[in-house]
Amino acid sequence: MKMIKNAAGRLVPDEINNQKQIPYKGVGKYKPTGHKYGPPIRSCADYPADGNKVVKNLREALERAGLKDGMTISTHHHFRDGDALTNMLFDTIHKMGVKNIRWFPSASFPVHSHLIKYLEDGTIHHIEGSMNGPLGRFASEGKMRGVGVLRSHGGRWQAIQDGEVHIDIAVIAAPTADPFGNATGDRGPAACGLLGFALADSIYADNVIVATDNLVPFPCIPWQIQGNNVDYVVEVPTLGDPSKIVSGTTRVTKSPDRLLIAEYIARFVDAAGFVKDGFSFQAGAGGINLAFLEFLKARMKEKGVKARFVRGGSTQYLVQMLEEGLTDFILDGQTFDLEGVRSMRENPNHVNTSPFTSYNFHGKGNFASMIDFVVLGATEVDLNFNGNVVTHSDGYLLHGIGGWQNCLTSKCTILAIPSFRDRIPVIVDEVTTLVGPGELIDVIVTERGIAINPNRKDLIKAVKGSGLPIKPIEQIFEEVNAIVGGKPAKPKLNKDKVVAVIKWVDGTVIDSVYQVEK
Amino acid sequence: MKMIKNAAGRLVPDEINNQKQIPYKGVGKYKPTGHKYGPPIRSCADYPADGNKVVKNLREALERAGLKDGMTISTHHHFRDGDALTNMLFDTIHKMGVKNIRWFPSASFPVHSHLIKYLEDGTIHHIEGSMNGPLGRFASEGKMRGVGVLRSHGGRWQAIQDGEVHIDIAVIAAPTADPFGNATGDRGPAACGLLGFALADSIYADNVIVATDNLVPFPCIPWQIQGNNVDYVVEVPTLGDPSKIVSGTTRVTKSPDRLLIAEYIARFVDAAGFVKDGFSFQAGAGGINLAFLEFLKARMKEKGVKARFVRGGSTQYLVQMLEEGLTDFILDGQTFDLEGVRSMRENPNHVNTSPFTSYNFHGKGNFASMIDFVVLGATEVDLNFNGNVVTHSDGYLLHGIGGWQNCLTSKCTILAIPSFRDRIPVIVDEVTTLVGPGELIDVIVTERGIAINPNRKDLIKAVKGSGLPIKPIEQIFEEVNAIVGGKPAKPKLNKDKVVAVIKWVDGTVIDSVYQVEK
Repeated sequence: MKMIKNAAGRLVPDEINNQKQIPYKGVGKYKPTGHKYGPPIRSCADYPADGNKVVKNLREALERAGLKDGMTISTHHHFRDGDALTNMLFDTIHKMGVKNIRWFPSASFPVHSHLIKYLEDGTIHHIEGSMNGPLGRFASEGKMRGVGVLRSHGGRWQAIQDGEVHIDIAVIAAPTADPFGNATGDRGPAACGLLGFALADSIYADNVIVATDNLVPFPCIPWQIQGNNVDYVVEVPTLGDPSKIVSGTTRVTKSPDRLLIAEYIARFVDAAGFVKDGFSFQAGAGGINLAFLEFLKARMKEKGVKARFVRGGSTQYLVQMLEEGLTDFILDGQTFDLEGVRSMRENPNHVNTSPFTSYNFHGKGNFASMIDFVVLGATEVDLNFNGNVVTHSDGYLLHGIGGWQNCLTSKCTILAIPSFRDRIPVIVDEVTTLVGPGELIDVIVTERGIAINPNRKDLIKAVKGSGLPIKPIEQIFEEVNAIVGGKPAKPKLNKDKVVAVIKWVDGTVIDSVYQVEK
Repeated sequence: MKMIKNAAGRLVPDEINNQKQIPYKGVGKYKPTGHKYGPPIRSCADYPADGNKVVKNLREALERAGLKDGMTISTHHHFRDGDALTNMLFDTIHKMGVKNIRWFPSASFPVHSHLIKYLEDGTIHHIEGSMNGPLGRFASEGKMRGVGVLRSHGGRWQAIQDGEVHIDIAVIAAPTADPFGNATGDRGPAACGLLGFALADSIYADNVIVATDNLVPFPCIPWQIQGNNVDYVVEVPTLGDPSKIVSGTTRVTKSPDRLLIAEYIARFVDAAGFVKDGFSFQAGAGGINLAFLEFLKARMKEKGVKARFVRGGSTQYLVQMLEEGLTDFILDGQTFDLEGVRSMRENPNHVNTSPFTSYNFHGKGNFASMIDFVVLGATEVDLNFNGNVVTHSDGYLLHGIGGWQNCLTSKCTILAIPSFRDRIPVIVDEVTTLVGPGELIDVIVTERGIAINPNRKDLIKAVKGSGLPIKPIEQIFEEVNAIVGGKPAKPKLNKDKVVAVIKWVDGTVIDSVYQVEK
């Protein structure tokens, strides 16, 4: 393994887990060649004619799928911190005595700290996927056998589609499924809304196992996952804890600082001319974002303006917009609360999407670049507008990328960030980990003012005279440093030990994450 | 080219249009190897960020797609005999001076006799796809440059997916579409219901052009065709004649003989025990089939029985079943009348399917084999229950295969056939062209009696004592020959000139079609 300086000036390994890597070449600069991966051709002669693919249990399905040492197993994260299946899956793999699995989740959560023992005993070799919380800390401390690979939602689709990651066995948690393997997330005791993060897995994996706690007679309608891609169906007593899969209700922030940020964003997008008939936007489900939605809705009603579409992660707030006629459509990538699930099930204009439609950069366009503005968060932003969402200033890898990188291609990318957290400034001179290049980040909104990327002369001009506290980013940086008593201490990192890499949306390596020295 | 005897005892060429062929090996005997075709990897960097892929006209789209001599161009047949786009397409190709196109439609219709001049002048080299009527006659007379290849709907998906047919440019007629290329067939002036026959083309073709006469703002919902697979969008004044795309209303037969056949089938499936809660069936849109539906409905109401799903081609008769609560779902492959289109648009339980879900034999199962019984037609059936749907007894190739071969895997395959047409017996000693092996055909229902395949001892036993006129097939054969004055004359065929081949569902060659000598 050799470290190479990429186009962003970051050192990245030329090889990870014995796989050759391409260093980041700049936004839109790397041009892929070759053909998409084609999974093995199957024959109906090898599948039950009556369509019943149910096998006894997970173990039998894994055995039939030919599970062996060193295979890649994928799971999805629609069950978030309520996921019981993945832990059950690795308990089974452990009992089977299989080792060195590459676990390829669309994301992992604190509930998966159960798997640390399998990372320790070699059942799991390493994780490719977001590591939220404990698993990220485990990797940061240099304890994982292989190097972690973090990808955005779109990057994960790209990696599967392009054949960079070959999935031997995909295990799909299905809130409702039929014996043929058709599956949906919009109903059943563990309803999570949709199953878009498992879609690529279902299409491209060699073997696909659907596990469900709600088996219904064929056909399961809608079929978000198509049984024609499925090999085995397994019934399990429960897929997880519904209250941790989706929340009963999502709530706006009550913090005055954060409410101020939300209000600034609403005023900004209006001043910049975005709030007009037919517009579109994406905002996540965090407290600031939900508060922003409330401010935006008030403005839309006042002006009599209707959006053409809004992008989820959906919550009760987006659902209200749809039901009140403030938008024609919700194009939803994941549902965060029960109202989102209900709306997706009941309203044909609440449409489920996938990383293919929304985010895949190696496609014939995607939805992300068509959106008027997007409101995102970050753990750090630097004076060049570069963004970090995966590590904290202490160097620990504690978050995944999600769709964050993919969303940066919107017409106006806004980061909503408190200027400091726990007395640590969020604006820094250089991000600990580069996840998003500054040239794609247009606006930073903090409670102390709004910084516009100097490249966006159009935006600077548009909001002139709006009365908004527009400031150079350096000014906010200095104000905050003065308050908290200086820049955050640089983390102690072992630069000889790369614990994970960050992929850009095109599969190139944009940065490395290093072992934290205690 | 060498002729080889296949497992059905039919002579088939080992090579067609310079492509090596595999002779038919028996039902379920050929096991595919290798991987599905992967289309070229693209990059969003090469597509408009605002999602607007609209280009000036068809010519510009073809030029940008790199159209050149010898390419393969695919179209779909959802517009049936009302299709204006395909003729417009080849007029454009002709004007561009491009030659030797392999035209790969999902089917062709009499309206496409417009293209005979392009077959004559070499614009089109040959047709791979069903040739209904004039184009079939043209091929039968030995006038086509290349050899025609006929595939079932499922076989067409299989051929594309397996990489047997590489599509350079797919042209998709879309009743409604947005500038990104999302498209639906369920609305717009040329509404045809669904676009399932174009789905494989959209996924696997190198270049995809969507043509529409109803461009709507993004997003077009539902997106039966996903814009993420589309390269160019073209607006055209009209896609075709709506009255020939779908009929205003479909009607049951009034012929007493055919009504009798329909009644026999209804009595047969009931006597055989199929008509019970949760059952499923498929019946086409022909006059006998619709009459059968009426008889079946009466029995279902009488017995208080509800189907779990019925398969379309949908018509007002199936829609009535859905709306009257006689079935939970319609799983629809194509809509034949306005009521079918309306229902698909309005009713979430009227579900659109594709040849992938329904028919593809090189998948992980398909819907066809799960169906309790299917009612089909045929141009000829022989004493071994072999079926022919493509040629007449005079040797002329006048029909496509449609989903016919794919449906043969149902639990009970019933052919509804008048015992003679125009004084030509339909039951023959040997079919002119073998399209479906007799081992998959279970029951022949004619107005003179019902013949059950001797292999199906279970069915013979089940209907014993039902009072139905069950007879050996030989008996019906002899009765009819006595009435019409003997067997039909054997056609005069030039056995040295193969004008087309018939593919089995697995891509092997099951029979050859020869030039008819006048």
